[in-house]
Amino acid sequence: MKETKIILSEKEIPTQWYNIQADLPKPLPPVIHPATGQPITPDDLAPLFPMALIEQEVSQERWIDIPEEVRDIYKLWRPTPLYRARRWEKALDTPAKIYYKWEGVSPPGSHKPNTAVAQAYYNKKEGQTRLATETGAGQWGSSLAFGCNLFDMECKVYMVRISYDQKPYRRIMMETWGAECVPSPSPDTQVGRDVLAQDPDSTGSLGMAISEAVEDAVTHEGTKYSLGSVLNHVLLHQTVIGLEAKKQLEVAGDYPDIIIGCIGGGSNFAGFFLPFARDKLEGTAPDLRIICTESTACPSLTRGLYRYDFGDTACTTPLLKMYTLGHNFIPAPIHAGGLRYHGMAPIICHLYDLGILEAVAYHQNEVFKAAVNFARAEGFLPAPEPAHAIKAVVDEALKCRESGEAKVIVLAFSGHGHFDLAAYDEYLAGRMQDYELPEEEIQEALKELPRVGG
Amino acid sequence: MKETKIILSEKEIPTQWYNIQADLPKPLPPVIHPATGQPITPDDLAPLFPMALIEQEVSQERWIDIPEEVRDIYKLWRPTPLYRARRWEKALDTPAKIYYKWEGVSPPGSHKPNTAVAQAYYNKKEGQTRLATETGAGQWGSSLAFGCNLFDMECKVYMVRISYDQKPYRRIMMETWGAECVPSPSPDTQVGRDVLAQDPDSTGSLGMAISEAVEDAVTHEGTKYSLGSVLNHVLLHQTVIGLEAKKQLEVAGDYPDIIIGCIGGGSNFAGFFLPFARDKLEGTAPDLRIICTESTACPSLTRGLYRYDFGDTACTTPLLKMYTLGHNFIPAPIHAGGLRYHGMAPIICHLYDLGILEAVAYHQNEVFKAAVNFARAEGFLPAPEPAHAIKAVVDEALKCRESGEAKVIVLAFSGHGHFDLAAYDEYLAGRMQDYELPEEEIQEALKELPRVGG
Repeated sequence: MKETKIILSEKEIPTQWYNIQADLPKPLPPVIHPATGQPITPDDLAPLFPMALIEQEVSQERWIDIPEEVRDIYKLWRPTPLYRARRWEKALDTPAKIYYKWEGVSPPGSHKPNTAVAQAYYNKKEGQTRLATETGAGQWGSSLAFGCNLFDMECKVYMVRISYDQKPYRRIMMETWGAECVPSPSPDTQVGRDVLAQDPDSTGSLGMAISEAVEDAVTHEGTKYSLGSVLNHVLLHQTVIGLEAKKQLEVAGDYPDIIIGCIGGGSNFAGFFLPFARDKLEGTAPDLRIICTESTACPSLTRGLYRYDFGDTACTTPLLKMYTLGHNFIPAPIHAGGLRYHGMAPIICHLYDLGILEAVAYHQNEVFKAAVNFARAEGFLPAPEPAHAIKAVVDEALKCRESGEAKVIVLAFSGHGHFDLAAYDEYLAGRMQDYELPEEEIQEALKELPRVGG
Repeated sequence: MKETKIILSEKEIPTQWYNIQADLPKPLPPVIHPATGQPITPDDLAPLFPMALIEQEVSQERWIDIPEEVRDIYKLWRPTPLYRARRWEKALDTPAKIYYKWEGVSPPGSHKPNTAVAQAYYNKKEGQTRLATETGAGQWGSSLAFGCNLFDMECKVYMVRISYDQKPYRRIMMETWGAECVPSPSPDTQVGRDVLAQDPDSTGSLGMAISEAVEDAVTHEGTKYSLGSVLNHVLLHQTVIGLEAKKQLEVAGDYPDIIIGCIGGGSNFAGFFLPFARDKLEGTAPDLRIICTESTACPSLTRGLYRYDFGDTACTTPLLKMYTLGHNFIPAPIHAGGLRYHGMAPIICHLYDLGILEAVAYHQNEVFKAAVNFARAEGFLPAPEPAHAIKAVVDEALKCRESGEAKVIVLAFSGHGHFDLAAYDEYLAGRMQDYELPEEEIQEALKELPRVGG
């Protein structure tokens, strides 16, 4: 009888994170200070992040040690299983060999705590007692609440008002782990009060929530800011996923032909593919395809521009060079809240620009169709975000059926959909809407890109 | 660095279920046909269950082979991890060694699919194409939907109306796995139509839903009935939990002093403790304590009578000898829906009567207090049912703190609370109600026990 899961022992949890910056053929474009137009310095970032994370952000070291305290917490759910999707292969009638790396076993239900725990650790070590962050649908906020709780730190989460009202479960999860979660805009910051004065019924936005969390961090003693995606150190922490997956595939005697994941800010899929991208950069896996999937409602890579832009709507962050739809772009209300970000991790954009990555965008009805078929074959209910990647796996597996090729396809399966069942309900009832994004709308949003760095 | 999880390989998934009936010092009381007052025969049960399950129900064989097809599906989530709860021990400042066996990693999120998959398999093998069942909060219905889907069988779930309306997520889960879920009372059965004619706004009850599912099974071609707890064959299938846990504790070099679980119908905890109860019956573990936890709102073992009673409110089932509060007893609306059953698995009742088990009942506020402390120490959010067992672990661990004893305490942790966060919200906001059950109410409910067998 064949194995379904490839399981590693706790001893095989990576002891180091992998830093792609050591292996890039040309370095990442610098992060720019919007006021000076010059590259930012560590001191510029010091009010927001602890020095250890700022160092990781710019480090050129290939391997960075994972602190034992962090590894010890990883053991609550890591190593995560790598599944061979035999039932799904059969359902698709494909000769392809499909694997998925399943991050949904963590307490918050996704890959997010891989970095939340590390960020809480470094902040605690440098004397912080409290972290402030923003969250959309709540996946990141609940993970940081989880991480802070384990290091006895306070955690304040500014949650986009519309999600706060519509999706109370993630908020309750945060409170159960001892965090404070308020709807954004909130009366707790000047930014929030200003918005509320103009529009007491504002439903908020991620950009607004970021501005509140940043203000909170710089105005409270012992408090720093924490971000759940996009930045280099966040992607670095997530490489435990890919390092484990690589070892697991070795155990299975396979190496991927295609790896597929979804990208919102990019941290989950980058965490998965970076150790494989290294092989491609070094020329040992020249034919490896790395496919990023996004939503047609927020197609940063497939339709955005590679330009310097702000990370938030209120223009309070440094400027990052990234594929962006413009910091004022407001995506349609798709269920994959984690894919509704105007920009993209600079590391992903750089590799995309170098031709290392492919990208494809999907509508949500085709995505949920694939997710339901996956759930019926493999049991687990995907979150709407990785459901986009599942759709791409289906497409590639069906191509294998036509060509007769037994390709090895590996899916980065970032989290469960237990708090997204209303989306499944909508899909099954035929009430789910697709959003065609007019070119004019993108052009309009791109008009306000800052004039920095080209 | 010490291990957090004890993980077995897929090869170590048990190949046989353990049947306690082979080792009982005196046999289980017979199941009685209500019309004749005589023990029921396999033929009496044939309209409801496939012959393989009827044979398992009365088998005296100690070991019963697990079909390879069932074991192969178990691999989607089994063997489940056994955790050493080091963070919880530290939070409780106890010298006790606490372990928990975590069944929440299954796709439906609890132990229930261990039997759902087996029941679907045997029904399919005997030519059935469809199963009918009832569900309260939806834990069981979603597990049977999951099981039927994997064997390409139809599944019809009668879900208690009040839960159907208040907790749509479990219903959507069932539908995602292809099952049909209707609120009970429904217009789909005579029983349902009769109730609706009298009271169109009836919120339903588990007893009523059982009656609908039974009627559905006997009136539809190719359809049998399926039950998620109470019966011997259900408990049998769940012994994979305890068999794995025993092996995992051996790996850890420990044997329990105390094992603790929650009991509603009793299938999860019995599945856990039966392989250990055998040691106690055989005299090799005379001091082992096995503690059953229940709700003060539905205290079958602690305040019920050991008598013959019906399994459902409408008196359509055979009579089982069990600790019961009477088949008309309606428990207060506690959040632990799985503990709101008037009776108890006959095997548990028999062992309790023999003095092998202890029982204790808790109020839900003290239970949720323990659950929140657990979640803050170990990360995972317990369902309200195992939260009752968590409260007992806390009590025993604190006794160890006082006595200085390093007892080994093992918790049967049956499922996650991702669909029960409203209950956490209620608790955290101080809005949770406890229910004192007046003795007169129990006496009233017990008045209608049938006059059979004692």
